[in-house]
Amino acid sequence: MDLYFSPLACSLASRITIYEAGAESAVALQRVDTKTQTTADGADYRAINPKGMVPALRTPSGDVLTENAAILPFIADQFPGANLAPASGIERSRLAQWLSFIGSELHKTVFTPLLSPKANDGAKTYAREAAPGRLAYLDAHLAGRDYLLDRFSVADAYLTAVLNWGPFVGVDLATWPNVAAYYARVTARPHVARAMQEEMGLFKAA
Amino acid sequence: MDLYFSPLACSLASRITIYEAGAESAVALQRVDTKTQTTADGADYRAINPKGMVPALRTPSGDVLTENAAILPFIADQFPGANLAPASGIERSRLAQWLSFIGSELHKTVFTPLLSPKANDGAKTYAREAAPGRLAYLDAHLAGRDYLLDRFSVADAYLTAVLNWGPFVGVDLATWPNVAAYYARVTARPHVARAMQEEMGLFKAA
Repeated sequence: MDLYFSPLACSLASRITIYEAGAESAVALQRVDTKTQTTADGADYRAINPKGMVPALRTPSGDVLTENAAILPFIADQFPGANLAPASGIERSRLAQWLSFIGSELHKTVFTPLLSPKANDGAKTYAREAAPGRLAYLDAHLAGRDYLLDRFSVADAYLTAVLNWGPFVGVDLATWPNVAAYYARVTARPHVARAMQEEMGLFKAA
Repeated sequence: MDLYFSPLACSLASRITIYEAGAESAVALQRVDTKTQTTADGADYRAINPKGMVPALRTPSGDVLTENAAILPFIADQFPGANLAPASGIERSRLAQWLSFIGSELHKTVFTPLLSPKANDGAKTYAREAAPGRLAYLDAHLAGRDYLLDRFSVADAYLTAVLNWGPFVGVDLATWPNVAAYYARVTARPHVARAMQEEMGLFKAA
């Protein structure tokens, strides 16, 4: 498989998932320059993903999947021994619920406008105003819990990649103690720490 | 099951799914006043869904699911004979991909700021600028296709509920001919037409 990524973009969640799954030998991490829309070997990334966004995953059958909510469970399902996604039932639905909340309410509503150089001041204000309600909801859920579901899952990988943007945009997790404690807990996991350290190195060297 | 909805909100996708599945006798549609956060019998809706958003689904086991990307496949899976969601494999991943794209890129990035009375002018401008790229991507996908997947699915139910907001916010689907033709095709389905007509009636009477 090929996983197309850009350092510290939300594709970090796929790298975390790959490391947690012990799947490094099965997935080649292909860096994308999202500004020029080219891959490391100079190919046009829009021919792979017309949306021009990372991540994209080329599956063993040659299909290209996009969207974290599709890619992360797909990778998890290839390596069921790692238990990174419930296989079925209400817990599988709960996983979909959290991936959707992270993608739509946190990533796209709060963080994308705050991170984007194209977003105007009004859009950034609107995004900043949306943050407290969503993070308070997350904080209440995490009271007395270690992870979003009953054990570490790909939803935690996605949430970690998103919360990692907090310091870049002035969203201070310390305001929500259960979220801050959760973030410290997840980022202390060796595979998560390694993935973040590597992408930080790639990001700084860019 | 109970499906909590508000007329012409994105919960319309669940009503479409319920009608397409022939599941009316199995799901009670419970109206929510999202302004006062109360149900029709005066109960506090935030006690059901702390996010205060519709839809929410109370499953036969009493669990409450939120987020369209979790609720719509759950309903589809309860009525497999209606074939509204691929059961497994790459087509199931493709369903998750489209539900995520509709939720994050169309619903939350484009339409929510355009619909929201709380969004400032800058946020609305930023949302309006995001529309053409995303609708052009959708238009290219729909060239020569009847539906998002190979047959009508819950992703089409969600997309229909979102595209229905176009006239309310000045997004003219005629700019994207494949999207316009798709929308005409889907809304001509008898169950879809009935769901939309009923919710329009409830909306106008409010």
